Amino acid sequence: MEPAVAEAAKPIFERLAIIGVGLIGSSIARAARAQGAVRTIVATARSPETRRRVVELGLADQVVDSNAAAAAGADLVIVCVPVGACGAVAAEIAPKLKAGAVVSDVGSVKSAIIRDMAPHLPKQVHFVPAHPVAGTEQSGPDAGFAELFQNRWCILTPPPGTDARAVEKVRRFWEALGANVEIMDPAHHDLTLAITSHVPHLIAYNIVGTAAHLEQVTSSEVIKFSAGGFRDFTRIAASDPTMWRDVFLNNREAVLEMLGRFNEDLAALTRAIRMGDGKTLFDLFTRTRGIRRSIIEIGQETAEPDFGRRAHGAETEAPIPKPYASGD
Amino acid sequence: MEPAVAEAAKPIFERLAIIGVGLIGSSIARAARAQGAVRTIVATARSPETRRRVVELGLADQVVDSNAAAAAGADLVIVCVPVGACGAVAAEIAPKLKAGAVVSDVGSVKSAIIRDMAPHLPKQVHFVPAHPVAGTEQSGPDAGFAELFQNRWCILTPPPGTDARAVEKVRRFWEALGANVEIMDPAHHDLTLAITSHVPHLIAYNIVGTAAHLEQVTSSEVIKFSAGGFRDFTRIAASDPTMWRDVFLNNREAVLEMLGRFNEDLAALTRAIRMGDGKTLFDLFTRTRGIRRSIIEIGQETAEPDFGRRAHGAETEAPIPKPYASGD
Repeated sequence: MEPAVAEAAKPIFERLAIIGVGLIGSSIARAARAQGAVRTIVATARSPETRRRVVELGLADQVVDSNAAAAAGADLVIVCVPVGACGAVAAEIAPKLKAGAVVSDVGSVKSAIIRDMAPHLPKQVHFVPAHPVAGTEQSGPDAGFAELFQNRWCILTPPPGTDARAVEKVRRFWEALGANVEIMDPAHHDLTLAITSHVPHLIAYNIVGTAAHLEQVTSSEVIKFSAGGFRDFTRIAASDPTMWRDVFLNNREAVLEMLGRFNEDLAALTRAIRMGDGKTLFDLFTRTRGIRRSIIEIGQETAEPDFGRRAHGAETEAPIPKPYASGD
Repeated sequence: MEPAVAEAAKPIFERLAIIGVGLIGSSIARAARAQGAVRTIVATARSPETRRRVVELGLADQVVDSNAAAAAGADLVIVCVPVGACGAVAAEIAPKLKAGAVVSDVGSVKSAIIRDMAPHLPKQVHFVPAHPVAGTEQSGPDAGFAELFQNRWCILTPPPGTDARAVEKVRRFWEALGANVEIMDPAHHDLTLAITSHVPHLIAYNIVGTAAHLEQVTSSEVIKFSAGGFRDFTRIAASDPTMWRDVFLNNREAVLEMLGRFNEDLAALTRAIRMGDGKTLFDLFTRTRGIRRSIIEIGQETAEPDFGRRAHGAETEAPIPKPYASGD
């Protein structure tokens, strides 16, 4: 037997601490266990209800009731709480971290995370911020699943001077969970995600808000006729409010920059509509198809029409065809 | 045997002519046949390739090579071409329409359709404009399917004075195809669809265009990290360019009105981000969840996370877990 094969079963980290067990935290727990990426999982959550649910779901080997207790003795601590809460968690766990431990997170913003967490962490601890670009519109420990990270990207943004072996171990951990790993500068991460994630969420939240408060069109009409495109936006606009509030408060400059670009382009498009400039509209509408093709080609999206919504839009029981009377 | 039951098998219209056999036209052909809603289907399309494909797919009993030939002798003529082409089609078919025939369409805009088509149609013909609010991002005769209209809404906008029996027959036709039917004023239709369909398409096209032309973030990065939300927008931005150009050119006032509302709200949201006003953000992000819940409750959307994308995002073959070397 080849030694490399025998080695493959060895965990990357001995003891993993997950702080915050929502969609992402619970998916990490499930995936890490499924892949044997760690030997032991200890988890904690702020609310007693969540901790109880984590026990019921059997997501961890041990569930403790404080962040400090979870961090004590852990080899990898992953902070899976909203971006705005990460600094306080770093302060709480710092005294309990063992020398050589790796601290990471899953925040959608990276510069602010480094600003808020790094100052609290002791020198003998390795800080490797991470952002798995994956998720659904659902929240909580029940929403997670082991396959969430498969074929998705996880971006690491280690500050300059971070121990290379610690970065490498975190990379292998995420690869074991099925992710592709990319290392990036935090500021560039924040700009990239502003356009691929933050601004899309903002305009989805915005149009759902606009549609809900019109005088001319009722909410009931918006809901009934949503299959014309609107309903796609409501998925994103159903994402966790606390998480997204914190993203916008903590990635302000990049979001405002990208929003400025979006608005410039929208002004040009609005002008084309006002002027009846069909060529400008047609040219844009043709170019945008290529981007989707590329996203499907690299496996980041399904090629099925309508996202493969079941039975092509007949999600509820298909109505029994209504009998019709004589055709006069 | 009850007479009502025996009657149920009788077609609503004898001869259906479909002019334009794309996603919608071909879905009507498939559904009308599957439900026995008509006795005979004649179809035509502008391009010889499409007509050939309609023959190969066996979508119609007869495929003819002109709009006039399709309309001749038909009891129901449904014009399924882009909004901007409907007026010319009405002019072509007018001389061939038989007395008492019903003419309809499937355009996403209704006032302009009435403006463009009605003047050409002879008095002894009934004009019942229709808009089935259903579709996918795909185009062409192969993209259609018989279930497309099930549990979706079809909006009829008959001009004042339209024969009530003709409206009733068109209603029964769409109900036979599985749709729920609503009768609406054309101007109100155009305003409602501007917010539930046209503006969502415009901002989806717009953000995909913005993302493709940034200096700071490459297209390759946009594509790789699209799973953070952006990819949902690319589905809508892959819709047929000609159809959508015509929608914006022909529903200008309503689209500009709704776009104005969208922009006002976005300005307020932008200000909240700039000012660090987390409460405004959190409140909006909480309210928008309710709209999605309602859309799911009335069966216009799937409740599955991520639209039920297969294997939760592992659309390509799930990668084989990478073996990792010793956990040092």
